[in-house]
Amino acid sequence: LLPHTTAEVSRILQACHQAGLPVAIQGGLTGLAGGANPRGGELVLSLARLSSIEEIDSLGGTVVVQAGVTLQQLQDRLSPLGWQFPLDLGARASCHLGGNAATNAGGTRVLRFGMMRESILGLEVVLAAGTILTMLNQVIKNNAGPNLNHLFIGAEGTLGVITRLSLKLVPLPQSSCTCLCALPSFQAAATLLREARRHLPALTTFEVMWDGYFTRAAESLSLRRPFAEHHALYALVELLGMDEAGMRSELEGFLGKMMDAGILQDALIPDSLSQAKHLWEIREAASELMPGMRPFIAFDVSVPLSDMGTLVEQLTALLECNHAGKQHHFFGHLGDGNLHLLTGPYPDARQMDEVKRLVYEAVGRVGGSISAETGIGSAKKPYLYLSRSPAEIELMRTLKLTLDPKGILNRGRIVD
Amino acid sequence: LLPHTTAEVSRILQACHQAGLPVAIQGGLTGLAGGANPRGGELVLSLARLSSIEEIDSLGGTVVVQAGVTLQQLQDRLSPLGWQFPLDLGARASCHLGGNAATNAGGTRVLRFGMMRESILGLEVVLAAGTILTMLNQVIKNNAGPNLNHLFIGAEGTLGVITRLSLKLVPLPQSSCTCLCALPSFQAAATLLREARRHLPALTTFEVMWDGYFTRAAESLSLRRPFAEHHALYALVELLGMDEAGMRSELEGFLGKMMDAGILQDALIPDSLSQAKHLWEIREAASELMPGMRPFIAFDVSVPLSDMGTLVEQLTALLECNHAGKQHHFFGHLGDGNLHLLTGPYPDARQMDEVKRLVYEAVGRVGGSISAETGIGSAKKPYLYLSRSPAEIELMRTLKLTLDPKGILNRGRIVD
Repeated sequence: LLPHTTAEVSRILQACHQAGLPVAIQGGLTGLAGGANPRGGELVLSLARLSSIEEIDSLGGTVVVQAGVTLQQLQDRLSPLGWQFPLDLGARASCHLGGNAATNAGGTRVLRFGMMRESILGLEVVLAAGTILTMLNQVIKNNAGPNLNHLFIGAEGTLGVITRLSLKLVPLPQSSCTCLCALPSFQAAATLLREARRHLPALTTFEVMWDGYFTRAAESLSLRRPFAEHHALYALVELLGMDEAGMRSELEGFLGKMMDAGILQDALIPDSLSQAKHLWEIREAASELMPGMRPFIAFDVSVPLSDMGTLVEQLTALLECNHAGKQHHFFGHLGDGNLHLLTGPYPDARQMDEVKRLVYEAVGRVGGSISAETGIGSAKKPYLYLSRSPAEIELMRTLKLTLDPKGILNRGRIVD
Repeated sequence: LLPHTTAEVSRILQACHQAGLPVAIQGGLTGLAGGANPRGGELVLSLARLSSIEEIDSLGGTVVVQAGVTLQQLQDRLSPLGWQFPLDLGARASCHLGGNAATNAGGTRVLRFGMMRESILGLEVVLAAGTILTMLNQVIKNNAGPNLNHLFIGAEGTLGVITRLSLKLVPLPQSSCTCLCALPSFQAAATLLREARRHLPALTTFEVMWDGYFTRAAESLSLRRPFAEHHALYALVELLGMDEAGMRSELEGFLGKMMDAGILQDALIPDSLSQAKHLWEIREAASELMPGMRPFIAFDVSVPLSDMGTLVEQLTALLECNHAGKQHHFFGHLGDGNLHLLTGPYPDARQMDEVKRLVYEAVGRVGGSISAETGIGSAKKPYLYLSRSPAEIELMRTLKLTLDPKGILNRGRIVD
């Protein structure tokens, strides 16, 4: 079903609730946890036709949009007005803002602007029985009782269907300044991050790539390696702001100090936009590596910074020992403690499950999360207990039963 | 009761739940909405003895504290390590971090760092029947199912008792750069804010004072007026960062441009820390004005920026017309759309209620919030319906009934 209005969504859910008919909710279909895949007997409800940008306040920097607007559509409308929505991620052309909210999307600018949650001022949500909950708050601060929007952000459509959003904007940066840093160790990368947070207020992105990933990614793009030598890790650092010359001189001064302190081994500030684009292509080359690794596993986990270096070493050793002949590539958003691991091929399903258990258990042991930014859906449901205690899972179930007593919304996702 | 441990809190609540005995929960007793005032027949549970800082990760910048640690105690422990907790507010020496979480505290740096909610990684909460919910997550990104912490942040102790917190830190800034701007109109102040957000990445504070407040505040402190002329509004702007000279030159360049564009009428960058301190004293002088205004009303409301200028004009006209001979002072955190109004004296309770209704209804009409940062407690409960729809209030009641079926936790606060 492709409703055009919130009222239609409400009528659909009312009917489904009465009939006990389960509903699979779909946005831009860019999710990575399988939550939008319909299961047997489910009606499919897509928000794709709720696609209008309703209001823009270009003095205060807020916007009201319908759930089916894509991230890219919103950015295109805002740019000429000098504003920007802070979220950015690879699926920007297809992902819906409603889906971004339902999954609390992350991306490459979380370090500066936070996750989707931090940019949401208010939501309109249709509850399982059809009640429309309009909370399209447009003020930054609202402590008039608990903020109910957070019940639905990151709940992956299991507690209600998001139909409209009120969002907080940031000024559109006029320029960016990117650099690629070569680092001798994880400890050096963590120290560089800490110092960059301290000294570079315009710091927006701090992405790391371990050497294996970096080398293979550059090869797959037929790019010349930016550095002659191999280094343990590489960090792609980006500042966003208005004053390009000022940012560049600030960045150069900072890198010089880090080099003198022995934290950095080498650094490259691109001279052109196209050179900067190549650096980003390396960071985003995971999709280039995937074809040669199928069937692969793409992990998206969070780990406390103080444990991440050791964890990567341990996992590399374990994977290379138990799963020789396969590729294991580490990279991630270091600024947010978010680690990605791409590993494969695993034609054997049992072996694939073994690797998942190995990684998720290691992450659970250091108090990390089995899902940093992609959610649980159905794909990660068997491992949820590694990141959430029995009391937490029990409370998730209680909320589900309270808000959706017949369990019609995205049934069987996250918890049963 | 003054428990020393989470287990003791759990045993107390278990007994109270069994007996149906209502509990008033107390932190640092700095709340402004009356939520911590015990009502007849309530047992008082204070978190004051849960006062230890348990863990500091000075690489990743996170900390685990007990709920009764004061904001100041935490800052004092962090400063020598080069870190800071981003929240700052006048009650810093007494307020508890647990209370800051329960009320989702705001303050003067929300523009840059967000409210308390944005700095919370995880909580430990004791539920009404004594269940301990430990969610002391230490990673920035965690989308392993809905984030249950947000149920308790801003719920003012009505859904559970916060006993421990895991918090996200920011690098301690080594220097600040402050200036006072004289502005011809609200529109100019809003434009200055928009441009400052665009051009000054280290912008942390943007406080405005209308002329009436500013003049009376400077008088009350026996300070010489910083500007010879009167202006419609004044903005206290502060940048925090590491490079004092760089920030100062950036700020001077920015103010020069704003002056040329006719947005600014005058600006003062203090030459000394003591001069900067005087400017902050003016901003924080509300408590100096209060004694001469008792019984006063201190409003804390949120208003969309595009409506704030007109609203202040309307309220000033209405108050001066209907309540002549009283003082009405406007100031606030413009960067967050948060307006404060101090008005009094109202010896007549009926008149006081009239003024509350007048202000809250005006705020409700523009989609603002009757509580920006101080919460609802018991003081603002009669007006909650002006900021929240019947469906929202119904859902608040449903959550309360689900999580605290006997209604023992802060009974009668926020909603019945």
